[in-house]
Amino acid sequence: MPYINIRLAGELTREQKKQIVEEMTSTMERIAGKPREYVIVNFDETREENWGWGGQLLDEL
Amino acid sequence: MPYINIRLAGELTREQKKQIVEEMTSTMERIAGKPREYVIVNFDETREENWGWGGQLLDEL
Amino acid sequence: MPYINIRLAGELTREQKKQIVEEMTSTMERIAGKPREYVIVNFDETREENWGWGGQLLDEL
Amino acid sequence: MPYINIRLAGELTREQKKQIVEEMTSTMERIAGKPREYVIVNFDETREENWGWGGQLLDEL
Amino acid sequence: MPYINIRLAGELTREQKKQIVEEMTSTMERIAGKPREYVIVNFDETREENWGWGGQLLDEL
Amino acid sequence: MPYINIRLAGELTREQKKQIVEEMTSTMERIAGKPREYVIVNFDETREENWGWGGQLLDEL
Repeated sequence: MPYINIRLAGELTREQKKQIVEEMTSTMERIAGKPREYVIVNFDETREENWGWGGQLLDEL
Repeated sequence: MPYINIRLAGELTREQKKQIVEEMTSTMERIAGKPREYVIVNFDETREENWGWGGQLLDEL
Repeated sequence: MPYINIRLAGELTREQKKQIVEEMTSTMERIAGKPREYVIVNFDETREENWGWGGQLLDEL
Repeated sequence: MPYINIRLAGELTREQKKQIVEEMTSTMERIAGKPREYVIVNFDETREENWGWGGQLLDEL
Repeated sequence: MPYINIRLAGELTREQKKQIVEEMTSTMERIAGKPREYVIVNFDETREENWGWGGQLLDEL
Repeated sequence: MPYINIRLAGELTREQKKQIVEEMTSTMERIAGKPREYVIVNFDETREENWGWGGQLLDEL
């Protein structure tokens, strides 16, 4: 805790995930005052076809 | 916002997802008065074996 | 299953929730072929201040 | 309802899922007084690389 | 990790939450082999009116 | 999309939320290359008593 879940269309490289985890953990530590060792981040990489926005599938936009 | 997440056992075709996104977006627009362009839908297609109901795995029922 | 979670800023009346549940259940039955009695819907009504979009809080937009 | 979602790094065997569903359903029945037939359990098996803890990816720890 | 989220209609007492956390943590430890100190449990207590089942609101059933 | 959900024990001030939204949106833009206007952030502020860690309630630790 905090527990941060990030859902996105497509995939990230391992390096991108690593940097995102570093930055978001730092954000929670600096701004919310949460101890670094309690911050959990979790990624859901999903297909574009599994998202709708404004009534259309994301892969149509 | 609204953000609608749909989790189900098994898979849907692209056409089914497209129709579900259309109908659910329309439902939120008509009934909840939410602007169409803010409605987000997201599908999680999961294995039957990953669901339990009433104490049993779904694939046993 | 399916399990549908709807998160939105603000509140809905009981009547709006009732109609949304009816329509979304019907959508899953007709389009995805899911038995009506398995469709679960769950609402999260949240504060505007708890949403960010495009880098700003929703209540600033 | 209750709806229990279990996210973990790595995979479980079908037998492990079966036992977890049995025990957690029993827990909700005995302690929370929820009827057995309403308890739903859902597993998300994810990659280690998709978790961060304390600012690092789980597969680095 | 594992991260367990429990959503239910109504509220639990603190004592019920405490026992559920103990039992579910033990379940994950014994059956899934997860170290006890990594198991996180999180409760969402919600209103009956915020659940639909089989096309009706839960408080109508 | 990306859709970022942040769950934490306790509350944040409006100013903390604003800064977290700014930083996390910027992180997704710079590192993941996601257009700023698609990044959504959502906070769940919950009671300490609703979290378990290592088999105990968070408010006992």
